[in-house]
Amino acid sequence: MSLALPQHATKVMKLAQAAGLTLATAESCTAGALAVLLADAPDAGKQFHGGFVVYTKDNKRVALGVPAKLIAAQSAVSSDVAKAMASGALDRCPADIGVAITGVAGPEPDEDGNPVGLVYVAAAAKGGAITAIECKFGKLSREDIRDRSMAAALTLLETVLSEQTDLTGRP
Amino acid sequence: MSLALPQHATKVMKLAQAAGLTLATAESCTAGALAVLLADAPDAGKQFHGGFVVYTKDNKRVALGVPAKLIAAQSAVSSDVAKAMASGALDRCPADIGVAITGVAGPEPDEDGNPVGLVYVAAAAKGGAITAIECKFGKLSREDIRDRSMAAALTLLETVLSEQTDLTGRP
Repeated sequence: MSLALPQHATKVMKLAQAAGLTLATAESCTAGALAVLLADAPDAGKQFHGGFVVYTKDNKRVALGVPAKLIAAQSAVSSDVAKAMASGALDRCPADIGVAITGVAGPEPDEDGNPVGLVYVAAAAKGGAITAIECKFGKLSREDIRDRSMAAALTLLETVLSEQTDLTGRP
Repeated sequence: MSLALPQHATKVMKLAQAAGLTLATAESCTAGALAVLLADAPDAGKQFHGGFVVYTKDNKRVALGVPAKLIAAQSAVSSDVAKAMASGALDRCPADIGVAITGVAGPEPDEDGNPVGLVYVAAAAKGGAITAIECKFGKLSREDIRDRSMAAALTLLETVLSEQTDLTGRP
């Protein structure tokens, strides 16, 4: 794992703490690694509720309520599925902000032909907007793709936390 | 992470594949690390649906349906909470077998005074019995306690998978 990731996670958790907001994850290709990272930040127990690992399409549907039709139409690696994962997580846990990652860590393209390194990251605030970004990391190693996906998720969390802080007027 | 863990996870996934059974996790103190381990086994997408990270008491209740009264009576680090996590996971995802880990990775005792290194691991088969074991690892590092907790969970999964194989008569 990139050495910068734990520091990045700690920075995000401090922002969450300052804003008085709690976090949750919904992960496919990173399979729980972002949750481990957030849980390892100091005082994580106060801001990080946990999350969902939805490795199969079936589990995206059952555990997070991602519509089967959406997955059939757009595959599991798509902007809308990432958004549905983030909002599904918020509906099923007590967190204020949910972040989702779905993509192809490789080494082979997925069953729907999505290329290695294609990853979508989404973040949603409870009752607020959902933002998604597309990342094309190219054919890197599984570890590199996961690390970059987590970095993208942490950066998106920073943005959403800053917006929420502006909205609430909290520091 | 102990080098033996990926091999152990691969062995468990092969047993699951031979038995035609799928797996899911419910993690507290390991925070998703067992899910990462299982997802990294070869062909994981066929046998591993994913799981739940329930880092706070609130999320154990909301995301997995662990009764608040049970947590209040026995704390989050107890045999019955581990069992409720495993069966809650099975109720909320398509897996045949659920495995749960709840414990104190440290470096300090938890808010209820449970000592560092006390960990409960449980496994449940859909419609079958739920088994739990208590581990007292003592005051090791967070990493060591997590590694040993995952090893205990994998060993328990082996036992449950063997029993299921005996029941179904599949190889």
